[in-house]
Amino acid sequence: MSMSPSRKYDPSTFKAPTFHDAAAQFRDGVDTPRAYLERCLETINEREPVVKAFATLNEPGAREAADASTQRWKVGRPLSLIDGMPIGIKDLLETKDMPTQMGCEAYRGNFPKRDNAAVWALRQAGAVILGKTTTAELGGAHPPATTNPFDPARTAGGSSSGSAAAVAARMIPAAIGTQVGGSIIRPAAFCANVALKPTQGGINRGERQATSMSTHGVHAGCIEDMWQVAVAIAERAGGDRGCCGLFGPRHAPSAVKPGRLIVLETAGWDNLDAASKSAFEALLAGLERAGIQLLRRSADLLVDKLERAIASAGPVCNAITGWENRWSQRSLVDQNPDGVSERTKATLAKAESMTVADYRAALVDRETAQQCHVRVAPLADAIITLSCPGPAPLWSGDVPGKPLAPRPTGDPVFNFPSSMLFAPAVTMPLLAVQAMPVGVQIMGQQHEDARITAMARWLLKEVPPIIVP
Amino acid sequence: MSMSPSRKYDPSTFKAPTFHDAAAQFRDGVDTPRAYLERCLETINEREPVVKAFATLNEPGAREAADASTQRWKVGRPLSLIDGMPIGIKDLLETKDMPTQMGCEAYRGNFPKRDNAAVWALRQAGAVILGKTTTAELGGAHPPATTNPFDPARTAGGSSSGSAAAVAARMIPAAIGTQVGGSIIRPAAFCANVALKPTQGGINRGERQATSMSTHGVHAGCIEDMWQVAVAIAERAGGDRGCCGLFGPRHAPSAVKPGRLIVLETAGWDNLDAASKSAFEALLAGLERAGIQLLRRSADLLVDKLERAIASAGPVCNAITGWENRWSQRSLVDQNPDGVSERTKATLAKAESMTVADYRAALVDRETAQQCHVRVAPLADAIITLSCPGPAPLWSGDVPGKPLAPRPTGDPVFNFPSSMLFAPAVTMPLLAVQAMPVGVQIMGQQHEDARITAMARWLLKEVPPIIVP
Repeated sequence: MSMSPSRKYDPSTFKAPTFHDAAAQFRDGVDTPRAYLERCLETINEREPVVKAFATLNEPGAREAADASTQRWKVGRPLSLIDGMPIGIKDLLETKDMPTQMGCEAYRGNFPKRDNAAVWALRQAGAVILGKTTTAELGGAHPPATTNPFDPARTAGGSSSGSAAAVAARMIPAAIGTQVGGSIIRPAAFCANVALKPTQGGINRGERQATSMSTHGVHAGCIEDMWQVAVAIAERAGGDRGCCGLFGPRHAPSAVKPGRLIVLETAGWDNLDAASKSAFEALLAGLERAGIQLLRRSADLLVDKLERAIASAGPVCNAITGWENRWSQRSLVDQNPDGVSERTKATLAKAESMTVADYRAALVDRETAQQCHVRVAPLADAIITLSCPGPAPLWSGDVPGKPLAPRPTGDPVFNFPSSMLFAPAVTMPLLAVQAMPVGVQIMGQQHEDARITAMARWLLKEVPPIIVP
Repeated sequence: MSMSPSRKYDPSTFKAPTFHDAAAQFRDGVDTPRAYLERCLETINEREPVVKAFATLNEPGAREAADASTQRWKVGRPLSLIDGMPIGIKDLLETKDMPTQMGCEAYRGNFPKRDNAAVWALRQAGAVILGKTTTAELGGAHPPATTNPFDPARTAGGSSSGSAAAVAARMIPAAIGTQVGGSIIRPAAFCANVALKPTQGGINRGERQATSMSTHGVHAGCIEDMWQVAVAIAERAGGDRGCCGLFGPRHAPSAVKPGRLIVLETAGWDNLDAASKSAFEALLAGLERAGIQLLRRSADLLVDKLERAIASAGPVCNAITGWENRWSQRSLVDQNPDGVSERTKATLAKAESMTVADYRAALVDRETAQQCHVRVAPLADAIITLSCPGPAPLWSGDVPGKPLAPRPTGDPVFNFPSSMLFAPAVTMPLLAVQAMPVGVQIMGQQHEDARITAMARWLLKEVPPIIVP
């Protein structure tokens, strides 16, 4: 492999991919969706051998879709704001023109030839479904081969590994991810994406509704693209069945300065590395200088109640998800014992030790935490916290004969809260630690997706990123 | 075909199939699950050519499972109260040993080789999965070839046609059905079953969770079997993800006399035939003589509010279900245009004319009705109403060249309310009209499944059925 230029992350020079500004040029005829796609393919050609973000690519299908889009822009009739946007789809979601292998040997070659609801909506909006992005096995913790675009010795995070990495490597402007515990926000944070994990039920998961706390979400290089993709789906396919779905305008909402933010420490605070903690504190100090009031658990009993309620978010999320997945995973393992990793089998074994009473107790913990979250709504405009516990960890694979590494795609400790609370979260690349990105997230009450997106837009525009060694 | 004895329905002579009493004899060694199964197979052999309740039968698999059960009973270690019970599974649910064809040409030969969560739980409980029962296409309105066991010129109802008919024909003591609008309670009512449509989410649907108002439920010949099957599933597979699932004891709860019942007329009242109305009124008069107080909309404003809120239950349920199914049905039709009936395509076309705003409005109507339902809780122990608008209608197939008959499996007008309200409902064969069964249902507040089952048990024991010509 030839020496490639350093990919170290520097927020002052890194230029994330964008689409909404190119779309303006499609109108003028200065650029075309086909030309945009070809630039993406060039980047993929250059970086994919190391980054390994894609499980499958459909270049001919993408070129055909991009040409059709080019024609629509030419006659001034794009199907949506994202008509012609090359998009990656996490390989948990079915696509009619590519296999859906879920990072799992047991699903090798699985090819249902139908589109997930979100993919169906994206095609209706004219998006170019370019490829399937890698996922940790079945959306769990067993990692794909994907590397972090800023340092190939590190994980890209997971389970939406490929979606986060493909955007970070500038291969595509946006990708669909999914989150159950921390599978959108964490990899996005490790990869300097912006990303939206919407309110639970905000984007139609179609038949991928196996668990009560998973969501589809969007990884992107900028807030505008992130929002436009999310709304383009919700407008066409709605939210999950029984849910009103994502609310908001077709264009990203204008920047709004928050007046007051709750700083949530979460269970991750105590074990946070000193550099990341100091970077986050420096960011908070900057917010205060900008006139934003901050509220912490030490100053408010209701915030402290919420912190206590989410202290067990990890075990509660894992118990709920484990129980909900256990019959289908058992069925998969029974059919194909060698087709599922030991790491996933260990998760299944834990779930199979549960009773329905354990599950009900976990549901009550979740409901209680959601109630504590509602109670802090009048105190501030939103919540701010880290998106990950420091930069992406090093990962070079399990060592045969040794116990399995517990969290090869990083620790979701800062992500379980928004999953447990069904709360919308947007991560922003506001910190750099050890020349790697570290995300900061803003969380809202349920259905405040547009509101936190507006605040994220302000923060990204007005707050200079903090860089620490 | 040889002349068979009249199958006309007479509640004083009809003997529904039961299992729980046979199980007592398995303990004593007087009977065995294998012998029980063979009696079922004999009946199937005799009646299936006309009734057509099964899409697939797995006799070898059933015999093997029954033999294993026989051994367990012999050593005094049955896996559950329903160990050895032959059960039919509606052909919408996946089964690892039989195809899942959903009454739809496009799914002919579909064989995913995995068990739905409920089937998985039933096998864990030792039940004998004997066959797949017919369903209206995709659980909708396009009927299978199944006939009513009490009159082959009439429909068995739908969409759980085969489940209802197989129990009525004494082929099996219980079967799994599913309901979105009226697909459990109505066919059960046309076929003199008892049946439970549980609280929304009560029984784990596994990956058949495409809509927000479908439930798995149980058709049976008696309350004891109905309840034991439901609880055996819920104990092992729980409820839908995010739901606490069915609560209650393993044995059917003891009979409880209701003190006060709300009589719900529903949108079906005005078009009800005179014979069925008089039969139902005679039943109500009997209840009053037994000391049960009745409360109608004319006497209570809150009951009237509820009646008004459910007056649009049909259009609201159809709008919600149509929207929620539209992407997957569109995907199916696009893949296989000739594999889906015109009736289902017409439903899809209607759904495709909806916007997400229409869907949200329907969700609000549903929530409002649920709130009106909660408000009547203090007024009475439960709600009583008909399970179907009179006896099963005649059905001899669509006439080529003529418009499609609107409701070949009968009108769900009395069933939409419990679906819309997410309320548990138990139907009881308490009326006979034109020598055909007509069901009466008792409905409770959400999670009162055990409570209404106890009241249904009392009604079936203490209230003589009403017979009108």
